[in-house]
Order: sequence, then structure tokens, then C-alpha cells
Amino acid sequence: MELNFRSDNESPAAPEIMQALSQANEGTAWSYAEDDWSRALDRAFSELFEATTTVIPISTGTAANSIALACLTEPWNLVFCHRGAHVFNDEGGAPEFFGHGLRLMPLDGDDGKLRAGTLVDAVNGSEGHGVHSYAAGALTLTQSTEAGTVYRPDEIAALCAAAGDQGLSVHVDGARFGNAIATLGCAPGACTVDAGVRMMSFGASKNGCLAAEALLIFGDGALRERAERLRKRSGHLLSKMRYVSAQLLAYIDNGLWLRLAAGANAQARRFAEAIAQHPQARSEYSVEANEVFVRWTPAGFSALETAGMQFLRWPGDENLARFVFSHATRAEETAALCEALASVAPA
Amino acid sequence: MELNFRSDNESPAAPEIMQALSQANEGTAWSYAEDDWSRALDRAFSELFEATTTVIPISTGTAANSIALACLTEPWNLVFCHRGAHVFNDEGGAPEFFGHGLRLMPLDGDDGKLRAGTLVDAVNGSEGHGVHSYAAGALTLTQSTEAGTVYRPDEIAALCAAAGDQGLSVHVDGARFGNAIATLGCAPGACTVDAGVRMMSFGASKNGCLAAEALLIFGDGALRERAERLRKRSGHLLSKMRYVSAQLLAYIDNGLWLRLAAGANAQARRFAEAIAQHPQARSEYSVEANEVFVRWTPAGFSALETAGMQFLRWPGDENLARFVFSHATRAEETAALCEALASVAPA
Amino acid sequence: MELNFRSDNESPAAPEIMQALSQANEGTAWSYAEDDWSRALDRAFSELFEATTTVIPISTGTAANSIALACLTEPWNLVFCHRGAHVFNDEGGAPEFFGHGLRLMPLDGDDGKLRAGTLVDAVNGSEGHGVHSYAAGALTLTQSTEAGTVYRPDEIAALCAAAGDQGLSVHVDGARFGNAIATLGCAPGACTVDAGVRMMSFGASKNGCLAAEALLIFGDGALRERAERLRKRSGHLLSKMRYVSAQLLAYIDNGLWLRLAAGANAQARRFAEAIAQHPQARSEYSVEANEVFVRWTPAGFSALETAGMQFLRWPGDENLARFVFSHATRAEETAALCEALASVAPA
Amino acid sequence: MELNFRSDNESPAAPEIMQALSQANEGTAWSYAEDDWSRALDRAFSELFEATTTVIPISTGTAANSIALACLTEPWNLVFCHRGAHVFNDEGGAPEFFGHGLRLMPLDGDDGKLRAGTLVDAVNGSEGHGVHSYAAGALTLTQSTEAGTVYRPDEIAALCAAAGDQGLSVHVDGARFGNAIATLGCAPGACTVDAGVRMMSFGASKNGCLAAEALLIFGDGALRERAERLRKRSGHLLSKMRYVSAQLLAYIDNGLWLRLAAGANAQARRFAEAIAQHPQARSEYSVEANEVFVRWTPAGFSALETAGMQFLRWPGDENLARFVFSHATRAEETAALCEALASVAPA
Repeated sequence: MELNFRSDNESPAAPEIMQALSQANEGTAWSYAEDDWSRALDRAFSELFEATTTVIPISTGTAANSIALACLTEPWNLVFCHRGAHVFNDEGGAPEFFGHGLRLMPLDGDDGKLRAGTLVDAVNGSEGHGVHSYAAGALTLTQSTEAGTVYRPDEIAALCAAAGDQGLSVHVDGARFGNAIATLGCAPGACTVDAGVRMMSFGASKNGCLAAEALLIFGDGALRERAERLRKRSGHLLSKMRYVSAQLLAYIDNGLWLRLAAGANAQARRFAEAIAQHPQARSEYSVEANEVFVRWTPAGFSALETAGMQFLRWPGDENLARFVFSHATRAEETAALCEALASVAPA
Repeated sequence: MELNFRSDNESPAAPEIMQALSQANEGTAWSYAEDDWSRALDRAFSELFEATTTVIPISTGTAANSIALACLTEPWNLVFCHRGAHVFNDEGGAPEFFGHGLRLMPLDGDDGKLRAGTLVDAVNGSEGHGVHSYAAGALTLTQSTEAGTVYRPDEIAALCAAAGDQGLSVHVDGARFGNAIATLGCAPGACTVDAGVRMMSFGASKNGCLAAEALLIFGDGALRERAERLRKRSGHLLSKMRYVSAQLLAYIDNGLWLRLAAGANAQARRFAEAIAQHPQARSEYSVEANEVFVRWTPAGFSALETAGMQFLRWPGDENLARFVFSHATRAEETAALCEALASVAPA
Repeated sequence: MELNFRSDNESPAAPEIMQALSQANEGTAWSYAEDDWSRALDRAFSELFEATTTVIPISTGTAANSIALACLTEPWNLVFCHRGAHVFNDEGGAPEFFGHGLRLMPLDGDDGKLRAGTLVDAVNGSEGHGVHSYAAGALTLTQSTEAGTVYRPDEIAALCAAAGDQGLSVHVDGARFGNAIATLGCAPGACTVDAGVRMMSFGASKNGCLAAEALLIFGDGALRERAERLRKRSGHLLSKMRYVSAQLLAYIDNGLWLRLAAGANAQARRFAEAIAQHPQARSEYSVEANEVFVRWTPAGFSALETAGMQFLRWPGDENLARFVFSHATRAEETAALCEALASVAPA
Repeated sequence: MELNFRSDNESPAAPEIMQALSQANEGTAWSYAEDDWSRALDRAFSELFEATTTVIPISTGTAANSIALACLTEPWNLVFCHRGAHVFNDEGGAPEFFGHGLRLMPLDGDDGKLRAGTLVDAVNGSEGHGVHSYAAGALTLTQSTEAGTVYRPDEIAALCAAAGDQGLSVHVDGARFGNAIATLGCAPGACTVDAGVRMMSFGASKNGCLAAEALLIFGDGALRERAERLRKRSGHLLSKMRYVSAQLLAYIDNGLWLRLAAGANAQARRFAEAIAQHPQARSEYSVEANEVFVRWTPAGFSALETAGMQFLRWPGDENLARFVFSHATRAEETAALCEALASVAPA
């Protein structure tokens, strides 16, 4: 028996999403995002975020992130991000491609989080050399973070305030935004548009959809044309966009996204508790969403693998591994994992 | 009653494709095209084309075309295409974006087709100015063409031979490739790899899929890394690629793609026959696939619209309109269209 | 004896320019265009054009043109130009490189000139397809034209008015602007800023400098930062910019540029008169600047070559050749050319 | 009296270079680097480096560096450099622009130098994530370094060997290469082509020229077309290239470049000796070329400034300042600087 805790990217789609696809598959529909589902997105997300929101449906988070950053910058701009950010480490240079050579500037921060002071220092350190240097242009945050932690609304607000003082726009990579909100229990707008965020990649693929992300522009729609141009130019304007938009509508309908995320988070917490009781293994970060980073011995991890548990040995650190819990993780799977953990005796 | 002959892009997905999606939605699967469905593509398409074929699954034809052209060229290359080509008119500059400023050179050709002599003249006319000019780099053909006609294998071979003599690589935009093969009745390889084509965008979205295209590299896989890098950099490497690959596998399984295309073509032929019998309207081009271009009067088109028929008034020519038939067009819909046509009395 | 009428690009620098270089070579000076010569440019050109003018000194016309077009457009914009324009035919894709994939749209026009009606038709023909098409963005004109003709101020004004109505910005490639003004006899601003031109490449290299062009931004300096960023990013911010700026200051000082251009134009007119008297050869275009295009027989051209005359056989047309006269062309050289022409007896 | 030790970029051109310009200004010459001076470069530099060398003359070091890196990489490549490198800090994103979004990876290293072990660790740390990561592509070194130190031939060879083992090509930014060779006393090829360097920016502007750099390709000329295409596309193919090439020929003729560099180095050493005798100030790095970094107090620096000495307060470190000596620095200027230094009494 193999149990998969490698990534929520490997999870199947939720039944509600599959059903929405089937329902959208009736008859003809306008192509290129002129269909009824796509046209309903602005209203649906504006209600969800309790603010005027422009929605650009798209298939991948990398595309959403890259288009957002290209919307907010010029090619000679610096974009600040956490050193662990997906945009910096895992997108194969997509932000640089869409942004025509913009530069990402990775910053350090405990627990996967940036602090306002770090940002201000970095901006100040990058200035003063005119056209010879890149110019500070934007900040991108990840919520929940790559460490499985969650920014509180006041933390986001402080970062946005600092960014705004420096003339930077703020983007949120919300690949696992549902997991964050399920934990925070706040309104989605409270840690985004209300805090000063300008654009957001609202992820759905990891948490129950097949391939669907909503690139959100908060407030006025001045950036809409730019975003739509970039989506088309990058080949991301699907002819049959209704199938993406139908996923998104079902995903946020009646709280499905939060129920799915809450389920994943619950499994992660359960595993975190098992780790807390283990004599050797420990959680590397506070477990606040659906990812658990475990610090342990290579022998310990190997024993778990032998027991059929699949997870990610962290590159470059043999004593670290990542376990991800998805909307589709069943309680008995987590129980089996916890049991396997407990059964590995300390050296 | 409204009947939609606007575009096959507006058709729903075929039931077999929806079923394949459901079947792929079981349990976890490796992400980022490492899944079993994606891994099965090379073999499946190699069998279909009876030649070694590398498959890059992707969501849109624009992305497939653009990646192909970027694989075959340097930024200082000219890419020759028909003046009516989708890459030139309808992709919002995606080829130029992926190709970092390559230039498309549109060529004239009757019936939507290029001729070898035209290509040779164009290449010769573009040469001889060293670094001051773009250098001829590639040729892209559309099969079936934007005019609803079909290149015969010998026509493709002649173009590839001429291109090869000039040092150009050849790409085929096969957004409606199924419609072409359903008409030609030849092996898919006969008018592609055997004729000298190097890369191909094998379309499936228009003919029964939701969002699935197969970017094909024929022969050795030297361009695979380049194509995969470009797919990732452009945000087209879906985390859950299984859903695209499962569509593609079902699409070519047991001849589904040809049955779907043949159905669309049959409806187009039926309408073409009705036009042939009409005292005024006439087909602009030979009807060889699933598109019918009709030359008629604005009043005639208006009368059809009043009768509930939806189609595309061709931009810039009030006496021309395009009718597209899809895998989902029902015989009774075509019959209604033909009846409406016949009922419009000549002026 | 060989006499060179191939191109004004092959001419040496004028003595006054060499002297200015020597004078600028005293002691140290601030680098990267912070020197006194560079700082004096805005005022000097504002006086010359009788309007607020921002000057970006740069080494080549290709760079000036490309930066200007990139300042005025987004990557998804069309830039309209004459089919014979240098930006389209002779810059190796630099506009597309700087413009990140913008597209040049060549238009026809007799005598190397565009007409407002042609522009309006082209803009209208390119519109209406949303993000699927490029969006009309800018117009670039060449003054004097590639055909050796000159736009009158009212022609420029009509083109700018039409462009403005369509939302396009206008750039002038003034590689041979001095030759145009020497002919027009008008104020430099009359056919540029006063007519509605936004940016201009003010050429100096062909007409007496070594390597110096002034990229001009008329009116408010909103585009200055963009232009300066692009200059730096493309490696065109010389550390010792004083040597470029000193050329430019000397070039426009006390009318030198117009005297040099008038000299070149006079030689061209003299040759044009000789052609007018020849029984066979004729001028292809009206000779209004320093270029003469001659329509004649290959045998005639060969006879001139045998007589030691060097000129450009026009690519693709064996009955056409171009003769260019520069500030350094001596009257006896032109006389020798005219004599050689006269001596070739008709067949 | 103001004495300028801010930068060798602020120095005038050497008399021999001005004379070469004048000599090149005789009569007409082929344009676009087809002239006799430009054609003589390959042989002249092949002799200087005692190896087959292709020369691309160009006006700026930023352009030379950026074209070199774009020649050696794909857009999805990492380029490793020292954290203090000009390409990373001072070129406004030119490498990213020419390289279409390549990424620079800054590495630490004492004394402005990289070590092979650091490179190997960095390459290993960047690998293993397939298309999701950038792929290691090239290494660029600065000789003499940004810290005013000099790599020995064996250090370069060790770095090239490590780079080669990892599949990386090596470029040298030789903006102050003359200063390095004047110190090393070795053949120019010994620390470049013989050590495994593939391309080099051979700087001349800082050390006596007006605006001239030679982009060198060692060994086979496979990269020549690529470099020439990029030079043209970036607007760096001067129409009157003779004036750049003539500078370069004069610069390396009969050892001028080394005499000029040796003069600058001698002044720097003299100032270093003065610092060594000062009770407070000290040299931050070993003084091996023409730059001296001084660690001292802000009050000390202010006192020097009050005495008329101009130099660069290092951004971000109030106790550090840079003094640069050029070919044009006169012994009495250095003496005045040393005297001013000595006269500032310790607190």
C-alpha cells in the first residue's frame, strides 16, 4: 500500500468540480471567455471579496503569477519575494519571461514570512543608483506560505503599507489561499484587498479543481486590458474557457473551497499532533495550513518510506521532509501515516 | 431557435472525452506531466504517425504554435506563413512573444494554400542583406487551411522540399488536422512527418476535447528540452497534466478523432451542396473540411440571421460569411440551415 | 580612380566635428551623460526646435528609432511605417527586440511617402478583433524619405492629425533630417513638434558626425525615464558620453548641420540635372534631398562602374540604382560622375 | 583645486587614440564594420592573444558583456557571477534584456574573487529540479576585479576547469583587463584563452579610448553570427565603425594599452603606500590594479573632500571609499592626494 503525501498537485478533482464540468458541457457557448460562466466571474468574486474585483480566468498559477507581476512592473523593475517563493524557485523563469527581464529579489524571513522591516531595508539598499540599477517595483507574498504558515491580516497590512510607502504594488500568490482562509476564519478580503493588495492569484487547482486559477485585480479595472493582452499573448486565452470558469464558479459556490481546504488542514493538524508526540521528529514550522515540514533523521524518513508513505525529501537538507495534505486525503490515510510515524523507534 | 455555426470553438466536448476525464480522476497521480497518461503519449502518437514522435501536451493551439516556432527559430528569423494564417492574424502576437521578436512574413496563396514557388520567391527576396535583415528561418502551414481547404500530401511534400532547400524548418498548425485527414483518407504521417514536417500542433480542442493540443516533434527528440523549457516558462506546464493527456489519449483512441471530424465534414458538405443549388450564393473556396465560406449579399446573410442562423460575417468583406460545422453539429441543424438558405428568394 | 556615391554612411566626419571632439578631450568629466556637454543638450535643442525638448544622446539611429518606438508602444502594438522604411528593412529586428515583439506594419506610398488616407484605412483594417489582434499604436515616418523625397510640413501635419484621431503617437526617423530642412527651408519645429510629432531620431552620423544621434522627446518629459532606462538596458549609455554630446552640440551650432546638408543636396541636384539631360536614364523619384535613384539599363550602370563610379545597385531591380551625396562629396567628384554619365552613349 | 579620483570612466582619451581617430577620418570607408580597420581586428587580436580570435567591435562594455552572455546561454540559464559584479549591479538589467530573461546568480567571494569550490557548490545547489528551475549555463568573471584585485592565471584556469566540468561556458568582463595584465606581466592569452575562457569583453574605454570595446570570441568562430546578429539587433552596429576599430587597433598597437594601464597602476600603488603609512586608514583589499578601496572614518573622508579630493563614497558603507587612478592621472595629482591624506591627523 502506497499513501501519497507528496503534493496537493497530485490530488484528483472534487466531485462537485467534475459535476460542474459536466453541466457546462451542454450545447454551444461563446468562445474565448465570452461565455456565460466567464462573464459571471467578476460578480461572483466581487461578492466573495466584498470589493470590486476583475477576474481573469486562467489555467495555471505560474501564468497567473507571471501575468500579475508583468502587469505591475516595467522590465527594469525589481520584484521582492521570499527566498522560498514559488515564483523564484519553481516557475522556470516565467516571471522573467512575461516581465521581459524583470528581476526577482529574494529576501529572507523566518517561517516563510516576510517582515515589513526586511522589505524596507531591501528597497533602501537597492536604490540610489539611477538607471544603472533595477528600480524597486513590486512585492509578491505567498499565502499560505511555502512553509505552511499563514500571514495574519495585520501582517499583510503592514507589508502593504511599507510597500506602498516605497511605491511598490503588492501581489499575493494564493496558490493555497483557501488553506489560509480556512485557518484565519476571516473574510477573504480582510487579508487581501482591504489590506492593500492590488492583484492576486487565487488558486483552485491544488484544492479540488483540475486546472483553474483566478487572476484577480482589485479595485479599478485599469489593469484589465494589460492582463488580458498578456493572457492572450502567452497562449492562455482558452477557446473553451467555459470549462475553467465553470470550475471557478463551483469552487467558490456555497463555500466549497473553504470546506475542501478545511479538510486538508485538519489532516495536517492531526499529523502535526502526532509529530509533537514523537520523541525525535519535530515540525520545522508552525503548522497552519495543509503542509507539514518535518525535521528528523534520514533513517527515520527511510523507515516511513518503507512503510509505504510517499512524501518529499527536501532538496539540499537530508533531515527535512515535506508532507502535504489535500482535500482528498482521507482520515484513514492520515491515521496510517501517524501510526507509521509512531512505530519508528528512536535510534 | 438559434443555431450556432459560428465556430467549432464553441462546441461542447464529446462524451468519450468527458468519460476519459472522469476515468482519469481516480486517486493521486504524479504532477507536471509525470503521470501515466502523459507518459503514454509518445508511444500512442508514434503509433498513430508511424514514426518516432515526441509529444508535448498543452492546453491551447496558440501556445503549441508559438512554442513550435520558437523551437525552430532564433529571434532574428523570418517565419513564412499564409496571409490568412491564425498565427499571423489571431494570436495576439504570441509567436512574436515566445520567439522574442521573430517576424512573421505573410504570403499570398489562392484557396488558403501556399505554393512552393511563392515560398522560394519570398525567401530569395528576403535574403542578401546580412545582419541588416531578418534571416529566413521557418515555414508554417495550416492543415486544414483557414479557407477550409486541404493540402494534399504531395503539396505538403513539395513545400517541405522547397523549404528544406532554403534551410527552413517546417511546422504545421493542425488546429483542424482531423478534418483534413478525414477528407484525405491517408495515414496521418503521409502529409506530415513523411512529407518532411518537423513539428506539428495537433489540435483536439475544436474537434471534441475541452482544452487539449499535442505539440508533436517528429524524428529525433533534440528539440524536446527546448519545447519543455518554453512550455514551463510560459506557464503551460499544468500541475495536473493528466487531465489534458487523458483527453488526447481518448481522442486518438480507436479513431475517435477521425469519426468526429468526418461527422463535421459531412455536415459542411451537405451545406455546400445546398449552396451549389442556390441561385445566388456560392462557395468562396472548395469545401474540403468543416468550414464553408459563402459569398452572397448582405441582405441574404441578414435573412439567414433573422431565421436564427448564427455565423461569422467576415471582417472587411460584407459579401462573405463563414459557417463552421463541428463534431456536435446535428444533421437536423444543418437541414434547418439549408432550408433557411433555400427559402431566401433572390432579389 | 574610384569615386564613392554608395552611401553617406561611408563619409568621413566634418572638420568642425573632429575639432569638437578634441576640445571635449580636456581633463576629466562626469561619466554616463552627467557631463557638461550632455547637460547642455536639452537647452540647445529646445532652442533649435523652439519648443521644450528632451534630448537622449545615443550612438546609432537604429537604437534611437528602436527606443523611440518602444517608448511609444506596448508589445502588443502595431507600428505603421512605409514599406521602404529603414526600421522595417534594415535594422535587423531591433524595433521588435526593443519593443518585446511589437509588430511593424508596412504600408505602400508613392515617392517613399505615406498618406493620411492610407494610414486611416490601415488602422481601420487592423481593428475590431480585440486581444486576438495587435492594436494600432504608433506611426513612424522617415524625413527625408528612403526615396530621397521630403515631406512638407502640411503633409506631416495631416499624417499626425490622422494618427492622433486613431490614438497613435508619431515618431520621425530623421536619419537625414538635415537634408530635409535644407530643402524645406522651414524651421525644424515646423515639420516636427509643431505638426504633432512626439519623438524624433535626429540623425547626425550620416551628415558629418562620427557616431551621434539625438533622440528627441518633444513637449513634456514624461517619456524621459522610459527612454533613459531603455538606453541603459540596451548598453547605449556610454561612460564617456561627452564625446557624443560634443558632436551634437557642434553639429547644430551656428547652422553647421544645415550647411553640410545643403552641400550634399546641391551635389545631388547637380547629378539630377545631368540625368534630366540624358537620353535614357531618368530619376525614379523627385530629387529633394541627397539621394538620387536612377532608372536605367544594367549596361548603363555597368559602364558607370567601369568608369570608377561606386553606387548601389538596388536589390531586386536590375534597372535601378541609388547614388548618395554627402557633406564631403566634392564638386569635382560630382562633375566626374555627370561626365561619366553623359559619356555613356545610348544603345 | 579639485582632483578627480572618482572613476577612470571620467578620464579623457589618450593622445595616441585621438590621433588614430584623425588618421581614420580620411576619405570614405565601407560602412557597418566592413571597413579596413574593422577587418584588421581579427588578425591583430589573434596575434595579441596568440590564438584564433574573432573580434566584434562595440561601443560599450555593457553591450559587450550582455551580448557575450546571450551568446553563451539560453533564456532559461543561470549565469553565475561575483556579488559585486558590474553585470549584476551596474548594467540596469542589460544582461537580462539581451538574454531574454536569463537569471544572474550572485556568489560571494573574498577580495572580489570567486573560487572554484564556491562555483561548484552553487551549481550543485541549483540543479535537480528540471524545467522548474533555471539551468546552470555560464560563468562570468571580472578581471581585474571590482575590488581592484587580479586573478592569477592558475585561478582562472581552476575556475574554467570547474565550470567546464559543470557544462558552463566562461566569459571574462575585462573592462580593466589592461590593468590586470600590466600587473601579472603574463601573456594576455595566459589568463584567458589558454585557461579556458570562451568569450571576453576586452575593455578600452576606461584606459585611454573614447568609446571602444572588443568583444572577443576565442577559438572557432561558431558564435560569430550570433554575436553579430545581437549587435545589430541591439543597435550597436555603428554605420561608421571605422572610428571604433581604429581606436582598438591603436590601443593594442605596440603595447600602448599596457603602458597606459601600467601608469594607472603605478599611481594606485603609490597611494596604497601612503595608506599603509597612515595611522588610521587602511586598504580594504590588496591593491593590484588601478583601484584603491579605503576603509576609514567618515570624518577622514570628509577632510579629504574638503582638501579638494574627489572620490566615491561607497554606497551603504560610510567607512568605505573608492579611489580610481587612470592612464591620465598625473604623478603630482597622486602626490597631492597622498599629502592630503597624510595631513589629516588622527582623531
